[in-house]
Amino acid sequence: MKTDQYSLLKEKLSSKAFSSIFVLVDDNTDKFCLDIFIKKTKIDEFNKITINSGEQNKNIDTCQIIWDKLNAFNADRKSLLINLGGGVLTDMGGFVASTYLRGITFINIPTTLLGMVDAAHGGKTGIDFKLLKNQIGLFSDPTEVILDSDYLSTLTKDEFLNGYAEVFKHSLLTNKKDLNFNSLIKLDFYKDVTFIIEKYSEIKKEIVELDKFESNQRKILNLGHTIGHAIESYSYISSSLNELKHGEAIIVGLITELYISHKLLGFPLKDLQNIKKTFSEYFDVISFSDKDIEQIHDLMIYDKKNEADKLNFVLLEEIGSPVIDQQITKELFIEAFKFYSKSL
Amino acid sequence: MKTDQYSLLKEKLSSKAFSSIFVLVDDNTDKFCLDIFIKKTKIDEFNKITINSGEQNKNIDTCQIIWDKLNAFNADRKSLLINLGGGVLTDMGGFVASTYLRGITFINIPTTLLGMVDAAHGGKTGIDFKLLKNQIGLFSDPTEVILDSDYLSTLTKDEFLNGYAEVFKHSLLTNKKDLNFNSLIKLDFYKDVTFIIEKYSEIKKEIVELDKFESNQRKILNLGHTIGHAIESYSYISSSLNELKHGEAIIVGLITELYISHKLLGFPLKDLQNIKKTFSEYFDVISFSDKDIEQIHDLMIYDKKNEADKLNFVLLEEIGSPVIDQQITKELFIEAFKFYSKSL
Repeated sequence: MKTDQYSLLKEKLSSKAFSSIFVLVDDNTDKFCLDIFIKKTKIDEFNKITINSGEQNKNIDTCQIIWDKLNAFNADRKSLLINLGGGVLTDMGGFVASTYLRGITFINIPTTLLGMVDAAHGGKTGIDFKLLKNQIGLFSDPTEVILDSDYLSTLTKDEFLNGYAEVFKHSLLTNKKDLNFNSLIKLDFYKDVTFIIEKYSEIKKEIVELDKFESNQRKILNLGHTIGHAIESYSYISSSLNELKHGEAIIVGLITELYISHKLLGFPLKDLQNIKKTFSEYFDVISFSDKDIEQIHDLMIYDKKNEADKLNFVLLEEIGSPVIDQQITKELFIEAFKFYSKSL
Repeated sequence: MKTDQYSLLKEKLSSKAFSSIFVLVDDNTDKFCLDIFIKKTKIDEFNKITINSGEQNKNIDTCQIIWDKLNAFNADRKSLLINLGGGVLTDMGGFVASTYLRGITFINIPTTLLGMVDAAHGGKTGIDFKLLKNQIGLFSDPTEVILDSDYLSTLTKDEFLNGYAEVFKHSLLTNKKDLNFNSLIKLDFYKDVTFIIEKYSEIKKEIVELDKFESNQRKILNLGHTIGHAIESYSYISSSLNELKHGEAIIVGLITELYISHKLLGFPLKDLQNIKKTFSEYFDVISFSDKDIEQIHDLMIYDKKNEADKLNFVLLEEIGSPVIDQQITKELFIEAFKFYSKSL
């Protein structure tokens, strides 16, 4: 990423390819990222739309606020929406752009590690609906995703690590020796971040290209997410659990689903323990009561990725060898949480 | 249409291709069309979702009601939504299906003439937003459109004629001698309706296939709609004008835009007068005050089809010869309304 990541955008801006430019920010990226964006793009005229940050605002009400602003500033079919923010903002901004006047052009500029390696790519746009994550949305590609690690300096350590859950996941899915889990953990997560963004976003893009609409291969990206998403949703409604970040929930999802992989597909115990140990160096262990685990199980049934009421899991035979459409029992689900909670 | 229009659907239903079936109806089609549908498809198990009829309910609130019902009945990615209704219902049902879990399969069964010859085809789905027609939506095709003129027997004469506005439009756009305006008006609109549905929906489909995303040729379908849509929207908010049906507004749009065509492109006066006379046999002339005309003009500026703040009209050089991207003056706009109001 030595070249100017903004060159294509700057070219379009100077050629007046768009009738008007809109930049979508949330209260955080407005404060911490917009100045960087303006300095780098040298953009001189745009309309700013500011929304509240956070998953709890990733809903149809916020979409209506954005559509309304686009109307108010006379956005038309040749307008451009630039989404400057994390995964919540790029998911929602992509949905709003793709449904405004049946679709206007949008560009994603992820400002979090999670966005850079995952959310901003692959064309999944959408919002939550009645506590169900990403229930409403569509497949629609940004014309460009600009990766600029300079935005990461605006993140807290927690927010930064939150993104590593998806990097870990990609490293567990890839069969490229120089990028798999065992290679990844030798890197310096802070110093090598530009390399990590570039390489691990490529893994996602390669998988998505094989299967844009998630009929088959793309499902492997759900590793850790069948349980992880349910944990995340549950943490928003439960009084016994603090709200979890996406990455924190996915880390639990990965450990439990790899335990299930070990039991059902013989995923090596040595790798499982090594992964659990590595994660524990970066993420606190979360306490789940028996009632929590029951309720997470029930919530999971509604997870959108499960077709025809069957819970389909992605499991691993070994690092780099995922297997899709696996079913598990409730007993094994509970057992996996016991494994997660047990100290090493 | 001698063959069983439902054969493909019946085949899919009996092969259990879908995990669950949803039928979207409004209060009218629930009462007048659902029994016909059940009798013809011999469907034995489905979930009914009922919404309120009318353009005023074509909004995000109604979408939320439908998404909620899909959730409540555990719809998943392999569910099917059958839209049984007029243009409002098929537009909105298509949008809801295309955004639920990033898109489930949907089939349109239009129950109005307008739906059969126009709205149910072409992949435009969407809803109104803050009084702006079809402001939110996307391009998404139904897997099938079932045309069955038996539903038309449930319509009042006014509702039936409402659909003829689009048939007239298609007859003005086509260069097929046996289908153009002069051929159409020789038919018996009631007796020949099966033939008319079949042929005039084909005209729409042929135009759409040339240009799915409306970058060019498809724009000709907007004939009569630049002014017509603005009149329709205005009739909803104005206290001086009764609410107009889509077809009634489009008839005014066609006459005014053909008058403009006559002035700017030499569209033959003889044809213009013949068209105006024919329309007057089926549709009452509507009174517009000077203030109405001013406000319709202002509202038109927001019409979604106008890019970069320019009002782009489709005009006709002659019947069957449309020209896109035409600009007009406000004076000519006002003059066109005077022509419309003047008795023959």
